[in-house]
Amino acid sequence: MASSEYDYDFFVIGGGSGGVRAARRAAALGLRVGITEEYRYGGTCVIRGCVPKKIMVYASRFSEEFEDASSFGWSVGETRFDWSALIAAKDKEIARLESIYRANLEKAGAEVLEGRAVLEGANRVRLLAQDRVVTAERILLAVGGRADAFATMPGAEHCITSNEAFHLEALPQDIAILGGGYIAVEFANIFHGLGSKVTLVMRGDKLLKGFEEDLRTELQEQMIAKGITVRTSDTFTAVTMAENGRMAVALQSGEQLIVDQAMLAVGRKPNTIDLGCDQAGVELDDKGAIRIDDYSRTTASGVFAIGDCTDRLQLTPVAIHEAMCLIDTEFMNRPTKPDLDFVPTAVFSQPELGTVGLTEAEAIKRFGDIDVFRARFKPLKHTVTGREERTLMKLVVAADGGRVVGAHVLGGDAGELAQILGICVKAELTKDAFDRTMAVHPTAAEELVTLYEPSYRIRGGQRVEG
Amino acid sequence: MASSEYDYDFFVIGGGSGGVRAARRAAALGLRVGITEEYRYGGTCVIRGCVPKKIMVYASRFSEEFEDASSFGWSVGETRFDWSALIAAKDKEIARLESIYRANLEKAGAEVLEGRAVLEGANRVRLLAQDRVVTAERILLAVGGRADAFATMPGAEHCITSNEAFHLEALPQDIAILGGGYIAVEFANIFHGLGSKVTLVMRGDKLLKGFEEDLRTELQEQMIAKGITVRTSDTFTAVTMAENGRMAVALQSGEQLIVDQAMLAVGRKPNTIDLGCDQAGVELDDKGAIRIDDYSRTTASGVFAIGDCTDRLQLTPVAIHEAMCLIDTEFMNRPTKPDLDFVPTAVFSQPELGTVGLTEAEAIKRFGDIDVFRARFKPLKHTVTGREERTLMKLVVAADGGRVVGAHVLGGDAGELAQILGICVKAELTKDAFDRTMAVHPTAAEELVTLYEPSYRIRGGQRVEG
Repeated sequence: MASSEYDYDFFVIGGGSGGVRAARRAAALGLRVGITEEYRYGGTCVIRGCVPKKIMVYASRFSEEFEDASSFGWSVGETRFDWSALIAAKDKEIARLESIYRANLEKAGAEVLEGRAVLEGANRVRLLAQDRVVTAERILLAVGGRADAFATMPGAEHCITSNEAFHLEALPQDIAILGGGYIAVEFANIFHGLGSKVTLVMRGDKLLKGFEEDLRTELQEQMIAKGITVRTSDTFTAVTMAENGRMAVALQSGEQLIVDQAMLAVGRKPNTIDLGCDQAGVELDDKGAIRIDDYSRTTASGVFAIGDCTDRLQLTPVAIHEAMCLIDTEFMNRPTKPDLDFVPTAVFSQPELGTVGLTEAEAIKRFGDIDVFRARFKPLKHTVTGREERTLMKLVVAADGGRVVGAHVLGGDAGELAQILGICVKAELTKDAFDRTMAVHPTAAEELVTLYEPSYRIRGGQRVEG
Repeated sequence: MASSEYDYDFFVIGGGSGGVRAARRAAALGLRVGITEEYRYGGTCVIRGCVPKKIMVYASRFSEEFEDASSFGWSVGETRFDWSALIAAKDKEIARLESIYRANLEKAGAEVLEGRAVLEGANRVRLLAQDRVVTAERILLAVGGRADAFATMPGAEHCITSNEAFHLEALPQDIAILGGGYIAVEFANIFHGLGSKVTLVMRGDKLLKGFEEDLRTELQEQMIAKGITVRTSDTFTAVTMAENGRMAVALQSGEQLIVDQAMLAVGRKPNTIDLGCDQAGVELDDKGAIRIDDYSRTTASGVFAIGDCTDRLQLTPVAIHEAMCLIDTEFMNRPTKPDLDFVPTAVFSQPELGTVGLTEAEAIKRFGDIDVFRARFKPLKHTVTGREERTLMKLVVAADGGRVVGAHVLGGDAGELAQILGICVKAELTKDAFDRTMAVHPTAAEELVTLYEPSYRIRGGQRVEG
């Protein structure tokens, strides 16, 4: 299978989750594999995404834990939070993970390079740091995405994105965050939990567009109840520096926020600028994402793309899955399309949100008649603390056949629950399979197996109670 | 259906989870229902079992949270724990739940009585407090179980059981607990987390007999690593009062423990003493449990039994399920046997244990050839804290057909995971259904859907690696 016509059988541009998995798998098959990364191995997920974010989520939850403890008989002396200590702890773990990624690549036998690389025609990659060209029979673009810098807004250069949020010098006393997506929501909760005064500004009327409506409403209300200011139907129009290093954020509504820090979380863009795609005949779509077919093939022969630089789902496990399908297809003679149906996901908001499958609105569109099973309750822990936090769980069931087509949880451990609910929904289980399962008591999840009667039914587009 | 020949259509002795559910359901059908309870409505689960236990588990976890916080940049001033405050908070919640149980019964139209009741022949119940006899067409015995007082041991009267553990005057400085079952294990962790010095003494060589061996070993090691003393192959032989209100616990090994408190958690017994079973022709087995058939019918016509006073699974959701099956069978013309196959359960140890289905050993016995998928890892939070806690997850798969016949988790949220894994295992999903599910990152549960290759296989009774 290996060909000596090229320097490599397989060359990967981008050392994130997708690229690393593809390179490791290919190298393990005995192929001559090279991989290069312009920043740090591990990519968005490990270096400035999922992992550091979750570490900061853990950190930010302690403030509520300290409060809750008093309801269980504990007195807690004065607590103080040291931002630099958190950042150092996080950076240490990230460095450890990065070195594991590199070690795994080397162990598999891949050549691990540093620096930016661009396409230079068919089968040709220019390594910019070394200023040399290497050739490869197959090239994989796994260059990921980057935070949208919102450059059209005056003063955008004063703002941070999630990249910088992980490396601020100090915890902002007050921060204004623009965006209503999961990154904006997660950071709003992180900064709030660590002690910042947080204002979340979004264009829409509700956070987390695309998620189950009911959970969006509930989460927004709970965040407001915690003390986060949420300004809907508004946006930043300009950011200027003010006195004492503070910033003035002008809003479309005409108001102005004076804060320590302004953060942009307005979306992510594929990392395809100056990648040489045109030289190699790799077409981009109008958003700059690499066009691919069902097998991750770009429009150029021998060039493939996976992960956030394509226009599929921007999730670490999806990029890894696409990598494995690609290796199966190209090197193992097992043509495999990535399966992106019913992908479970989590938002590490506070409370957490976990979800898989169709929202109620989507299910109505797709199935017409549906039954909705809904539970909203105070979790046991908070019957003691009195905290006004509610867990909301929802099962969306196709009336015809009874398949559970959506499962949505807002509350503690929702991400963990979504993972296993993902198995149930992907396996096309019916509501009856939930009903036949014995409860585990006392848990929150037992609500999902004791929802014997629908909360409401949708028939012919109309809501019918009970 | 109702008959005026009797005072009641249906009379329930025992206001625990099973009895209350049966009485509510029957009353909601318009039947004339009476129920009596000798202690407090809610039964073991609400009053001195699952619920207060879990509240105390929450309380006991804060000490590790305070320690962990420092790894995330927090300094926590001196913490103190006030036992009486916890007990008061717990009692308040228990009282609230008890009143909900009563209110629900009344709302359904049941007559709610107080006091002990005993059988007095066919269809006759004597209410001891009122010293009168009532008659009923059908009688349900839902009298539950009680902690074994281990009365044969000299000095047992100085010891507490779980009943008293919920109402101690003060937190013991040091406590010796006899038992290796889930109650002993849960209380060992609770007292340890609240600050007691704990010695757990058990006859066997490992805690949690009957659970997956691998998890038993891991949990025992982790409890010892936390600082709990575990003494295996030993037992209490006598307890005597010592100086200053302390107790001397003589062990079979010849050693002696001097502690503030000695606790017995050596099992539970059906609450059938002096219940009048012989008068009514209700047979007991040799452990004192009420003999029942597949439909919860005792050996006396018109007398039924559910829950912990029978010899089935002693779990709240099982008692509730038995209650609902009974109502279906007797009053709704839908004969329904309780389905006790593949019941998921949790032990609220620290770390938690959640499990459903067959252990590895059981699966080998039943299926012969099996594949075992096992993941043991440090959870993300503890890569930062450095705490030597490992999560252990195990899937036991029948080699022929690939059905997942057992799923076992030791680690954070294991109880919640067991609930949803319970749906998967009950629905007879194969390992392939797990593999086809996308990971949710970063979660612990994602390990369960990314175990692509068996850790080992068992073929013809022999372990084969990889």
